[in-house]
Parts: sequence; C-alpha cells; structure tokens
Amino acid sequence: MKTINEILQLINSEIDKTAWTKEPRGLYEPIAYTLRLGGKRIRPAVALMACNLFSEDVQPAIKPAIGIEIFHNFTLLHDDIMDKADLRRGQPTVHKKWDENTAILSGDMMQIAAYQFIAETKAEYLKQVLDIFSQTAGEVCEGQQYDMEFEKRETVSVAEYLDMIRLKTAVLLAASLKTGAVLGGAKAEDAQALYDFGIDIGMAFQLKDDLLDTYGDEKTFGKKIGGDILCNKKTYLLTTALEKADAVQREKLQSCLQIPSGREEEKITFVTSVYDELNVKVACEDAMNSYYSSAMANLDNVQVDNDKKQELRILAKKLMFRED
Amino acid sequence: MKTINEILQLINSEIDKTAWTKEPRGLYEPIAYTLRLGGKRIRPAVALMACNLFSEDVQPAIKPAIGIEIFHNFTLLHDDIMDKADLRRGQPTVHKKWDENTAILSGDMMQIAAYQFIAETKAEYLKQVLDIFSQTAGEVCEGQQYDMEFEKRETVSVAEYLDMIRLKTAVLLAASLKTGAVLGGAKAEDAQALYDFGIDIGMAFQLKDDLLDTYGDEKTFGKKIGGDILCNKKTYLLTTALEKADAVQREKLQSCLQIPSGREEEKITFVTSVYDELNVKVACEDAMNSYYSSAMANLDNVQVDNDKKQELRILAKKLMFRED
Repeated sequence: MKTINEILQLINSEIDKTAWTKEPRGLYEPIAYTLRLGGKRIRPAVALMACNLFSEDVQPAIKPAIGIEIFHNFTLLHDDIMDKADLRRGQPTVHKKWDENTAILSGDMMQIAAYQFIAETKAEYLKQVLDIFSQTAGEVCEGQQYDMEFEKRETVSVAEYLDMIRLKTAVLLAASLKTGAVLGGAKAEDAQALYDFGIDIGMAFQLKDDLLDTYGDEKTFGKKIGGDILCNKKTYLLTTALEKADAVQREKLQSCLQIPSGREEEKITFVTSVYDELNVKVACEDAMNSYYSSAMANLDNVQVDNDKKQELRILAKKLMFRED
Repeated sequence: MKTINEILQLINSEIDKTAWTKEPRGLYEPIAYTLRLGGKRIRPAVALMACNLFSEDVQPAIKPAIGIEIFHNFTLLHDDIMDKADLRRGQPTVHKKWDENTAILSGDMMQIAAYQFIAETKAEYLKQVLDIFSQTAGEVCEGQQYDMEFEKRETVSVAEYLDMIRLKTAVLLAASLKTGAVLGGAKAEDAQALYDFGIDIGMAFQLKDDLLDTYGDEKTFGKKIGGDILCNKKTYLLTTALEKADAVQREKLQSCLQIPSGREEEKITFVTSVYDELNVKVACEDAMNSYYSSAMANLDNVQVDNDKKQELRILAKKLMFRED
C-alpha cells in the first residue's frame, strides 16, 4: 500500500513531466501556467488510492488520473471567465493575465488534453473509463449551468442546491474513485460503493466550504469571512434559512440581503444573526455529518481488507475537519 | 455503394435523432440550435464515403462521423465568440442570441458530446479513432490560435498562412476521411492516402474561399465581395501580394490597406488593382489547382476499384468549382 504522500509525489512528478512546450506558445503557455498553480490534487490522489485498494500496481491509473486533474483545472479556467474572477490560488486568472480569447481557447485545448490522458487506459477498460469520464464531464457542465442560473433566481430550494453541488463538485470526485477502482480490477459493486463514497464526501466537502465561509476563523481560513453573504450566494445556509423562516423572518432576511455595498460588516453581522436565530449552522453541520457517515458506510461496504481503507478514511477526515 | 444524397440523408436523420431535450435547458437548447443551423455536413459525409469504399456497411462509421460534425460546430460556436461574430449562416450566433457565458459552456458541453459520439466505435478501433480525433482536435485549436495571432501581426508569410489553414481547416476533413476508412477496414496506407487527399482538398477549398471573397460574383456568392480586403485579412492573396511586391508596390499596398472605413468601395478597388498588378489571382488559382491535382493523385493511390472512388471525385470537383 502506498501512503498518500507517496501518491501525491507520483502525481506531481507526472504533472511536472507534461511538457506544454509546443508551439504556438500562446496556446500552451496558459495551460502550463494553470497546472503550475497547484491545488490539492485530491481527484487524482483518490483515483490512485482507489486503484491501490485492489492492485499493488497503480501505474495503469496514473495517466487517466492526470486526465481528470487536467479536466478539473480546465473547468476552473472557464468558470473563472464566466464568474469574472480575477484571482485563482492567489495568482491572476488566465483571462486576466492574458485575455478572454486565450482563456477560452486554452481551456478548449485542456479538455482535449484531458481526453488524451484518459485515452492512455488499458484497452480492456478504455470504453468503460471513457464513458464514466464523459458522463461525469457533462454533469459538471450541468452543475455549472445550474450554479449560474441560481445566481439570477429569486429563490432556490435546498434540494435544488444539493443537486447543483452534487453535479458541480461531487460527481468528479466520485468518478475519480470509480475510475481508479476499475483500473485496479475492482468488481462492479466495489467500484460503485467507492463512487457513492465519493459523492458523499464531495457533498460533505462543499457543505464544509459553506460553513467555513460564514463561521470559519479568519486566521486559519485564509480568505475573508462572509464572502458568500456579501454576494448573496445561495449556499446551504441561505437556502435553508429561507426555507426555515416564517413570514416575518423571511422579510427580515430579505431586507438584510439588500444592504448595499459599503456597509459590508453590517450586512455580514445581520445576516449571520438571522442564520443563528434559525439555527442553520447546526442544520448544515447535521447535513454534513450525515453525508460523512454515509460516506464511511459506503467505504465499509467495499470488499477489501479493512486496513487498506485506512488512508482513504484519513483523507476523508482531513477534508471534513479542515479549517481552510 | 451509396450516393452522396443517400449518405447526407443518413447523416441528417441521425443528427435529427440526437435529442438535446435534457435539463438544464439553458445548457442544451443552444446546442440544438447550433446543430439545427445546418451547414453542408461535408465532414461526416466524407467519413461515410471513405468507409463505403471498403465496406458496404457504413453503419459503424455513423456515430463517429456525427461526433466529428458536433466538434466542427463546437469550434464555430467558440470561434464566433472570439471573433465577435454576430451572425452564423444568417442567424444570430449563440453568444448574441443568449450570452457569452452560455456560448462558452454550451460549447464545452458540445466538445464532450462529440467525444461521446466518437466513443461509439467498435472496440477494436476505439483507441485508434480516439487518437486520430484528439490529435486533430488539438491541431484545430492550434490553427485558431495562429489565426488570431496573425490578425495582430504586421506580416505573415505565405508558408505560415498555408500552415495555419492546414491546421484550422484541412486536418479535420482529412481526419474525417481517415476515420471513415479505418472503420471500413482499410489498410493503413489506404487510410493515409485518404488523409492526404483530405489535406489537399481542404487546402484547395480554403484557397477557393479566398478567391471567391475577392473575385467572386456577388450574385452567386451570397455575401458582399471584398470582406477580406476590408478587414485586412491575411489571406493567400494578401500574403502572396506582400511577398511578390517590390518596395514601391509594397508601400502602395500598405497605404491602400490603411484606407479608413467609410471609403469601402475605394479600398476594395485599390487593393484589388494592386493584386491584379501582381498577378496574385493567378498565383492563388495555380496553388489551388496544384492542391487539387495532388488530391486526385492521392485518391488514385487508394487501392479500391476505380469506379468506387467516383463519388468522392465528384464531391471534390463540386467543392472546387463552386461559386458560393
């Protein structure tokens, strides 16, 4: 069994090997830049860890795992254009550092490159891995579309929000695990149990994100607390609050949401106080813990030695109890 | 053997079958719209025709051929954003009819859908077809990148221009033919000869485009003559003129290129007169005819009954001697 650190080393050295030195530089340099920005490499890591549950040799999963990571970074690149985000991981986004056309086209090229890595799959698994990948990639696009639509909508239900984050965040983590499992030679039900584990962890991870943005500690969180509140982002906290509120509370919350910019601290304090009144922090923690328990149950169902699953449990715990 | 009309019918009925009726509508409706805009369907048509050279049954090539057509339409969609084009085939472009974010994301989804169709390939050919497709798709992005870079450059050599149109236009036609041939069971050298035929036809096709834009007949061409001249597009005509010109002629041409908008007719007349002085129309026709001859020689080299190749010859001739 490989430790997570050994696995991350494998991934990073493989990413470092990808040469984006071809011409035209204007197309490939932004790809190299994007992949150099780093990130936790969680998706390829869990792919290799899932493979490692069933096979000592993780080599067959490396290229497809990198393909998933390239695809993930492609979605960030194009999402940043759509969200007009200036920074990503503390660095200028591609459309800021270059321009929008460059960001569109380099992203398109990254999606093709992702498929080229995915295609480096043993022939016997190629069709299956390709189908998992395309299905998932399509779902991620659907998630992004819902996310953009929700911004323009008056209200979003908790159920709609959960479905959106499943598509936008959870399915790619789940597909990473399933792909790794398939390439390790797992039986269909084990691959599916790992997929379900991934969905649950992905959901819990996003709910933790929502919690930290409002209730995190600014010192460890690294970003300013209350960013979601300031842009009226329809998070689990806000959608839950709007569902739990009675008529009076809803009116109060709606008027807090309309506090204009310039009065940031006031808006954050007021919205948070309505959240507290409605106990949405606890509701979010409950939902998160419930996904986390379900994740652990799904992992328990995977038919391999219990101690082999320890690394995945540790990773899940880390993702869940992180403070940044 | 199927006639080209039978083949186009197969393709169009298959495209009509693709239901883009899923949710979210905001993601899938622009895809349906784009594919409904039509177009000549040349790429899937030649894919099936190439398959038909080697196999009576073209069924195995239909889905991959549609995948290529979806990819082609995706490139038009994203190119239209980058070029800020308002119209495509006489209809508003997706980023005009909806908005830019919709155009980016629907395009991304189309690229995934293209791969899903490509993946509907017999297992024995899957890896090969996938590799041809990804390689080609990457080259098309490279071509678009060069095209955008050339717009900002002072000069572009004829050789650079030819390489750009090879990437942006010819390789996808060539890959369509090769893919069809592979799926029909062609030998490697025949698939390659058809690829080379496709490159030549693609090059000749683009040179014909350049010719029509300046020397076409407005009545049959359908667009205004001189559009390329008005936007100083670095076509075969302009790059050749700049290479053939002596110092005096180059200065004259450069000053014609700087005639400001508002004096459209004057600019078109003056630039065309320099072209005529330098005989670039003939140079372009010569280059086109040379590609066309080379295409025919490559087609002759394909080891199948001569009369089977007749439909491809007719199509090539039509593309070459078209007036629109």
